[in-house]
Amino acid sequence: MKKLVLAYSGGLDTSYCAKHLSKDKGFEVHAVSVNTGGFSSDEIKEIEKKAIELGATSYTSIDAVQTFYDKVVKYLIFGNVLKNNTYPLSVSAERIVQAIEIVNYAKKVGAGYIAHGSTGAGNDQVRFDMIFQIIAPEIEIITPIRDNKLAREEEIAYLKSNGVDYPWEKAKYSINRGLWGTSVGGEETLTSEKALPDSAYPSQLQEKNPIDVKLTFEKGELVAIDGKKDNPVANIEKLEALASKFAIGRDIHVGDTIIGTKGRVGFEAPASLIIIKAHHLLEKHTLTKWQQYQKEQQGNFYGMLLHEGNYLDAVMRNIETFLTDTQKTVSGDVFVGLYPFQFRLHGISSKHDLMTDAFGKYGEVNKGWSADDAKGFIKILSNSGKIYNHVNGDK
Amino acid sequence: MKKLVLAYSGGLDTSYCAKHLSKDKGFEVHAVSVNTGGFSSDEIKEIEKKAIELGATSYTSIDAVQTFYDKVVKYLIFGNVLKNNTYPLSVSAERIVQAIEIVNYAKKVGAGYIAHGSTGAGNDQVRFDMIFQIIAPEIEIITPIRDNKLAREEEIAYLKSNGVDYPWEKAKYSINRGLWGTSVGGEETLTSEKALPDSAYPSQLQEKNPIDVKLTFEKGELVAIDGKKDNPVANIEKLEALASKFAIGRDIHVGDTIIGTKGRVGFEAPASLIIIKAHHLLEKHTLTKWQQYQKEQQGNFYGMLLHEGNYLDAVMRNIETFLTDTQKTVSGDVFVGLYPFQFRLHGISSKHDLMTDAFGKYGEVNKGWSADDAKGFIKILSNSGKIYNHVNGDK
Amino acid sequence: MKKLVLAYSGGLDTSYCAKHLSKDKGFEVHAVSVNTGGFSSDEIKEIEKKAIELGATSYTSIDAVQTFYDKVVKYLIFGNVLKNNTYPLSVSAERIVQAIEIVNYAKKVGAGYIAHGSTGAGNDQVRFDMIFQIIAPEIEIITPIRDNKLAREEEIAYLKSNGVDYPWEKAKYSINRGLWGTSVGGEETLTSEKALPDSAYPSQLQEKNPIDVKLTFEKGELVAIDGKKDNPVANIEKLEALASKFAIGRDIHVGDTIIGTKGRVGFEAPASLIIIKAHHLLEKHTLTKWQQYQKEQQGNFYGMLLHEGNYLDAVMRNIETFLTDTQKTVSGDVFVGLYPFQFRLHGISSKHDLMTDAFGKYGEVNKGWSADDAKGFIKILSNSGKIYNHVNGDK
Amino acid sequence: MKKLVLAYSGGLDTSYCAKHLSKDKGFEVHAVSVNTGGFSSDEIKEIEKKAIELGATSYTSIDAVQTFYDKVVKYLIFGNVLKNNTYPLSVSAERIVQAIEIVNYAKKVGAGYIAHGSTGAGNDQVRFDMIFQIIAPEIEIITPIRDNKLAREEEIAYLKSNGVDYPWEKAKYSINRGLWGTSVGGEETLTSEKALPDSAYPSQLQEKNPIDVKLTFEKGELVAIDGKKDNPVANIEKLEALASKFAIGRDIHVGDTIIGTKGRVGFEAPASLIIIKAHHLLEKHTLTKWQQYQKEQQGNFYGMLLHEGNYLDAVMRNIETFLTDTQKTVSGDVFVGLYPFQFRLHGISSKHDLMTDAFGKYGEVNKGWSADDAKGFIKILSNSGKIYNHVNGDK
Repeated sequence: MKKLVLAYSGGLDTSYCAKHLSKDKGFEVHAVSVNTGGFSSDEIKEIEKKAIELGATSYTSIDAVQTFYDKVVKYLIFGNVLKNNTYPLSVSAERIVQAIEIVNYAKKVGAGYIAHGSTGAGNDQVRFDMIFQIIAPEIEIITPIRDNKLAREEEIAYLKSNGVDYPWEKAKYSINRGLWGTSVGGEETLTSEKALPDSAYPSQLQEKNPIDVKLTFEKGELVAIDGKKDNPVANIEKLEALASKFAIGRDIHVGDTIIGTKGRVGFEAPASLIIIKAHHLLEKHTLTKWQQYQKEQQGNFYGMLLHEGNYLDAVMRNIETFLTDTQKTVSGDVFVGLYPFQFRLHGISSKHDLMTDAFGKYGEVNKGWSADDAKGFIKILSNSGKIYNHVNGDK
Repeated sequence: MKKLVLAYSGGLDTSYCAKHLSKDKGFEVHAVSVNTGGFSSDEIKEIEKKAIELGATSYTSIDAVQTFYDKVVKYLIFGNVLKNNTYPLSVSAERIVQAIEIVNYAKKVGAGYIAHGSTGAGNDQVRFDMIFQIIAPEIEIITPIRDNKLAREEEIAYLKSNGVDYPWEKAKYSINRGLWGTSVGGEETLTSEKALPDSAYPSQLQEKNPIDVKLTFEKGELVAIDGKKDNPVANIEKLEALASKFAIGRDIHVGDTIIGTKGRVGFEAPASLIIIKAHHLLEKHTLTKWQQYQKEQQGNFYGMLLHEGNYLDAVMRNIETFLTDTQKTVSGDVFVGLYPFQFRLHGISSKHDLMTDAFGKYGEVNKGWSADDAKGFIKILSNSGKIYNHVNGDK
Repeated sequence: MKKLVLAYSGGLDTSYCAKHLSKDKGFEVHAVSVNTGGFSSDEIKEIEKKAIELGATSYTSIDAVQTFYDKVVKYLIFGNVLKNNTYPLSVSAERIVQAIEIVNYAKKVGAGYIAHGSTGAGNDQVRFDMIFQIIAPEIEIITPIRDNKLAREEEIAYLKSNGVDYPWEKAKYSINRGLWGTSVGGEETLTSEKALPDSAYPSQLQEKNPIDVKLTFEKGELVAIDGKKDNPVANIEKLEALASKFAIGRDIHVGDTIIGTKGRVGFEAPASLIIIKAHHLLEKHTLTKWQQYQKEQQGNFYGMLLHEGNYLDAVMRNIETFLTDTQKTVSGDVFVGLYPFQFRLHGISSKHDLMTDAFGKYGEVNKGWSADDAKGFIKILSNSGKIYNHVNGDK
Repeated sequence: MKKLVLAYSGGLDTSYCAKHLSKDKGFEVHAVSVNTGGFSSDEIKEIEKKAIELGATSYTSIDAVQTFYDKVVKYLIFGNVLKNNTYPLSVSAERIVQAIEIVNYAKKVGAGYIAHGSTGAGNDQVRFDMIFQIIAPEIEIITPIRDNKLAREEEIAYLKSNGVDYPWEKAKYSINRGLWGTSVGGEETLTSEKALPDSAYPSQLQEKNPIDVKLTFEKGELVAIDGKKDNPVANIEKLEALASKFAIGRDIHVGDTIIGTKGRVGFEAPASLIIIKAHHLLEKHTLTKWQQYQKEQQGNFYGMLLHEGNYLDAVMRNIETFLTDTQKTVSGDVFVGLYPFQFRLHGISSKHDLMTDAFGKYGEVNKGWSADDAKGFIKILSNSGKIYNHVNGDK
């Protein structure tokens, strides 16, 4: 029998795939879900139950939260990556790790086929297919939803006629949750004019009284919150729990898809936004001007390629090495205030802080040089402009 | 008598200069203030009165608000320029235009000297001196505050002993107001840990009920608010008046000074932040991916050179031409919500919006291509990765 | 009858297309060749004769040399564009203009189909198809060679069986000639190890005695050779005629194709290499450091997108505007020596030359500043490094 | 007595310094020369003799050739660094290492002063002073030539009057030799028009018969010539000896000095040019498109900062780490031909060569994908252009 690994989420599309591929197409379907932070253990049990009911021969849940952090999230923090200055790449980044886990699983179990439920109109198909093909070009990719352009109603009818009658009422908003944020799609995001309503976001305002939080970074990684040490993944989850009560971190990302269209998606990502902005502030104090300049270019480029599914390009490893090397002095505390719907960065404290008053105070006094030094500096800094005007100016 | 133009603001430092240079140094002092949006006409009258009392031969107020917009602000909007992803370059940008106006005035009146009140520890001395030297290398620059490192008390005592006894009580926070924002310096900004208190900011929360605002851009310029057309400068001022009631647009900029130190400064810049973010959103809808990619690099570079006083470098004119050319399709409405301490971008409407459903809906359906097209696309996109793995992978 | 425009070159592949499409597929074939500098009028007559014999209803030769210069070559010079630091993009650039001319012709004559002879293994198919689809998405593209993967022998046999018996002996090297250079492909370029033999190149060494040539640029364009004014296209052709006698400008380009493979192609492009290097030298004298820095980035990016067929992206127009703006001072003479197999740049003369001795002589004397100015300059330039070491150094 | 370390080269300027500082200024002068490849052991003995005769208390020759390679040259190769696309940064790079060695020596011997012989009109003063000040801000820098703007005749007269009567006849061309190339300055390089005469260059054409050379790289380093393994420094020296007989590698660099002027300098650098170009070719075969894209930007930036004396900026270490990481697959042979006045790159052979025919032959046949795949690829690649035209085109 033809062994097939199905990237299974428990949703309608992949449920259709499970039934269709096992029953009509004669595949031995091995359903796999990769948890990058979005599923509780109860949800996983539920997914497993469904998978088996739908005809899957086996179901496996792969816990990839730590892998997700180690392979991707860490570098998104090091690079202060916000796609188009807005989006922490929550979903884009997860897809990469999910694809890698699935294709490796398929190779391990000797599957000849991998199936996923993406449509032909988005980014995810590209991210999945590219990684599958590069890592395992010998495995065939099966995509019933993309191939058949099925409407929801057709899928539901098909499942019903096959004895599967789950309550598939369409949620008004499609939610994708993960360690690095939650994406929210809905009617509003299909056009350009409107915001998502407050109610569309998974978290609602529960705390109205501001609180202060101290984030401690060590070589760019979040190692403690309010002085309590824990591993970075746990700290991200704690901060998410804390900040989501303030309904912080909502926005809409408008971006260019890999297939040349424009796309719009809402997201709620309090922890990632706070961490990136806090980390960035710490870098402003601890890195040189040129380190920041190069990091900005490399970080943005890393985000672009990651977003476009190019995670396996060798340049990505080179940039990760670069980014890691820049973090040697990015250690210290960042003081953050959480307020309803927003956060503020109060300041930082670091033994690597380059804003020292050993050389004077900005704009007030200079200890490390004299007025004459400053004048000489500016005089020579003006040379090229003077020469340009001397040569090209009106005479 | 030696003719000298003094960049005069009415503050203690330049008041000291006015008296010292006219009385002790024998200069014929012509005091000039350049208004880039910070002074009311009452304030200007007050400044004039002081200048004459302090011994200035003449006082001139140059209105440079429109010039400031035309020469700098316009391009900061086109380039979505936020220094270090935070600061709209409010003061940095003003200094450039002030320096140009002052040196041109000095040339016009045939002055052999220009004086300004900057210290030797900040950026402003560089911006002023560079522009003066490049445009008029024959004019000598006089900087008593920088040269003598005088303390406030010494300046006050000197003025008192010369019969000038204004109430110079030190404001707890030094405020610099202009069309493109207000900077706020204080004890807290001299070190790294603390935020400025709410009370340090010039505007306080007055409106608690959110309102929606429609900003209309034409080729990148803000031409109307809520449908009412006006020139961009007037629109910036209107939006500032509206948004400052919500206490929007406060933050602290941490940056590298031109002289190699780190500096920290608070600012309140509601209009500039809202306009830049709204303009950027409109661009996400109306520009291609590569236009945005190049604009980001050019815009950041423009901001860096402007911040560092390099406004007169010929490359700046080239980048302005580039940025202007990119704005041909950046027209349309941006819908913004103003809330206490924050604003939200709801969406946009533009006839140049590239998010059209003529080719399908992002992530849902594809009209312009088939599933097979998508598969072929991804297959070939995977080529380089496949080849790389084929050549370098484990075998 | 179905009207089809065939991009016809007179070679075997497009001859096969002409016969096959008119006879077997029932198209009304309108053969078109676009001359971007490669065809003499005799060759064009020959091509026309063949086209009609092969069954074409009409033949049209479009002279696009000037268009090629105006739309592309000019900007390649402004940008000093050498792909991978080597290749003047000779063929890549031509394809763009040929595609635009052909699709515009097809629209003009109301054709429903366009055919071209590219294979499925190279860049040209992408350049042609992309431009056709973007400008005229309603026109269907027909590509018999790509679709049927025909071998030369099959094509010859087919033509013979249809009464066409031209001498199709395979040239050992395939040559593609145009205004901006000639590409040379052969057995050697299909693998990585070997150079092309001297005899593979179209021009052979005829002149052994070096000569000097003066190239005059005005705003970046080559307006005179040895003082004789002519239009830039004529000057490029003259310089090509002159320099090719010295067998100058041969090299092999190794690059990444649009479809993810590596490709290798020889070329002979004396005029373009000399012009780009001479132009670049003139810029080193007449542009500021930052103009050169930005131009390098923009120029390389322009070359990359052009190479990849992305000529119609709006960013290309923006960059062209930028590049044009940088050329305002790029005027003057460049002195070049032509030698067997190489050229040397002797020097330049320009009224915009920023290497003036008004401020001193490099490394020898300084007139515009004192030793103390220089010391102050360096002292403050060292600030950030000093602070970094003070904060992070061993203590 | 005041202990002073003098950067001593044996030339007129530093000989003047040796005598003047020891005799007139009362310093205990410790002369030091740092050999970065320019001095033979005979020359060093000669320098030592002079130093002592001129009044130096001690003389030390520091052999820094290997250090020079390890700290700088290696990365210039990894980054294919040619300043302004021409100059291998021969002298600029040496100065950095010389300055570091000297200041470390001064710290070791407990000197309170360092002296060097640079003028106030060039780059070297900046490179020396910056590194001295950053590494040892407590050491005072003494620069008699810069301070006193002495003419050669004055220096000679002074030395003569002090009993030192060496034959100081001014060489027509000032030569600076080192591992990474030799710079040549002369009357011609002080203005823009003229080339240096052949005779100005240290090497003259001795070999007229071309030879082929095989360069073997391992992770970016030159580990063998014609199959003979040796360390990279020895290989550079061997290649220099071989290639200089062909008078290869001469050119003139025109660049922006750190102090804002333009400067022009001739150089002869056969080994560095051949190695960089050969290395670059190997990278074109073994690195991905995006690796090359990022390397070009990082490499150029590295060269710019190195040239400007910013070697100690922390970003330089980050870029070195990045560049090293990119070299993992840059191993293989490069086949080079040496000809009178020029060299040619014939081709390469590498097990990491990405130009494999496993996926087809460029431009001829495709094995890894079908015609339909290619069409789908191009169709979707055209999407953004199609949408742009649909939205913005003439209708």
